[in-house]
Amino acid sequence: MTLEPATGVTAIAPATVGNVAVGFDVLGHALAGPYDRVTLRRVEKPGVRIVRIGGIATDLPRDPALNTAGRSVLELCSACGTDLGFEIEIDKGIPLGSGMGGSGASAVAAVVAANALLTHRLELSELLEFALAGESAATGARVLDNVAPGLFGGLVLALPGDPVLIERVPVPQGLRCVLAHPELQIATRAARDMLAKQCPLPAAVTQAAHLAGLIAGCYAGNLELIARALEDVLIEPQRAQLVPGFADVKRAACDAGALGCSLSGSGPSLFAWSRSADASRVARAMAEAFAEHGIAAQCFVSRIDAPGAHCV
Amino acid sequence: MTLEPATGVTAIAPATVGNVAVGFDVLGHALAGPYDRVTLRRVEKPGVRIVRIGGIATDLPRDPALNTAGRSVLELCSACGTDLGFEIEIDKGIPLGSGMGGSGASAVAAVVAANALLTHRLELSELLEFALAGESAATGARVLDNVAPGLFGGLVLALPGDPVLIERVPVPQGLRCVLAHPELQIATRAARDMLAKQCPLPAAVTQAAHLAGLIAGCYAGNLELIARALEDVLIEPQRAQLVPGFADVKRAACDAGALGCSLSGSGPSLFAWSRSADASRVARAMAEAFAEHGIAAQCFVSRIDAPGAHCV
Repeated sequence: MTLEPATGVTAIAPATVGNVAVGFDVLGHALAGPYDRVTLRRVEKPGVRIVRIGGIATDLPRDPALNTAGRSVLELCSACGTDLGFEIEIDKGIPLGSGMGGSGASAVAAVVAANALLTHRLELSELLEFALAGESAATGARVLDNVAPGLFGGLVLALPGDPVLIERVPVPQGLRCVLAHPELQIATRAARDMLAKQCPLPAAVTQAAHLAGLIAGCYAGNLELIARALEDVLIEPQRAQLVPGFADVKRAACDAGALGCSLSGSGPSLFAWSRSADASRVARAMAEAFAEHGIAAQCFVSRIDAPGAHCV
Repeated sequence: MTLEPATGVTAIAPATVGNVAVGFDVLGHALAGPYDRVTLRRVEKPGVRIVRIGGIATDLPRDPALNTAGRSVLELCSACGTDLGFEIEIDKGIPLGSGMGGSGASAVAAVVAANALLTHRLELSELLEFALAGESAATGARVLDNVAPGLFGGLVLALPGDPVLIERVPVPQGLRCVLAHPELQIATRAARDMLAKQCPLPAAVTQAAHLAGLIAGCYAGNLELIARALEDVLIEPQRAQLVPGFADVKRAACDAGALGCSLSGSGPSLFAWSRSADASRVARAMAEAFAEHGIAAQCFVSRIDAPGAHCV
């Protein structure tokens, strides 16, 4: 690992919608909205140090092994066999525990920044493992459905295995994602632990058909198929209770024209896909439905085919 | 239901590969190989009668309500509110209990022939329900993964629900299906009853990712993705024991260049997908592997995008 002159490099990584209703752990897409920003600087003293955490969340671990950005850089350095020194600054833009992939975004931004400091840069696909290892500092799991779309951008299907296989799925023109972020927090780990370890075979079959239908609908530009497919029969029924007003917000989104609506990742944010012409109305409807339950929610409209992490 | 002059109409429906490894109950494709042939003739005497069953299997129910072809015509007549008379002749070309969708093919051919006798013909998609109802006379289930590709042709994804949503998935040029039919019989109903009612969540997630990967790989023409995706982690492990030598035949197919190999439907036939250049070698390898277990197997190579049912 040879370094270019010791200037700092800053990368940003976007918030993401994990699962996309029917692709639990394997499907996700980037959002053009909040993002995390990570700056790496080469220093004389060996090792990885986190020197500043700013933005909207500052109470993150400063031990690099416990911090998602720190750990991903440690893993990258270890794989490259270097003992060079790095200072890391983190600016959180993605709320923690929001279901928008915040822990993964810091890891993704960190490896993209680190890669820019390598003389022989790695391919994005080679960075995936380091970002996954970094993210696991927060969740204890391999969160492909957030890390992969954060790194590659757009709508990404990830086939588990060694190596992970990534396929970027085209998104029909004119589709948008509405993201509603209520003022609540859910710990991903707890939301994962609450899931039943077994599922009924018919539900697994229907869920798989829905995921396949969503993929086919995206390739074929078939919005009717997408609307039918965007229905989570496996995970959402177990997690919906975590978000007060979930059923009402979902119904409001669909009544306003959304093709489908479900939890973003493990929530509490909800996402909806809609035609672009309906997106503002869907966003208003979701915010109003949350408000009727006494919950303030920030809503925004994003492309689904949003850019992945990149240096700035 | 008004009838054209009382000439007979003959339709054929192809054998099919149900499940295609990872799409249990929802994915299937047609085969250019064996087929069932059904002739319908209008007669004066009301009601539906089966007047002849020929071909390679003659011990089928002659009571139309218990026969897949007869029942599908009964259902169609009932829906159209007619009490006209029909005689049905069935020529079985698809071996029963072979895993090639024989019971569904007779039902599909029967509704396609009956439709040709209607003055106001129904759309193929409107015939699906009658063919499904007919097929259920044999299996007691709705066997979408055989009936839908038999009716529409090609590789078909079916989303359960009311109505069923059908999407024909494009198949990359130069891919072939090798079908190996060993001299064994498996009853679909028994193969269904043996499946566990619950499945581990991780297996369901991997299987769904594989199905989605197969669909994406077909649209994108990505053979590497198709090869990774064609691996059934959910159903095959429970059913492989039904076919002596299964593991050896599968290994032989893959060693000979197949992208993947699994049970066709509930077996005992095995199918493999391969590049067309490898297909003959794969077929030979599968036949030889069955032979080493003392089992004769007929093998043939087919397009995957094979035609669906049609009048002849």
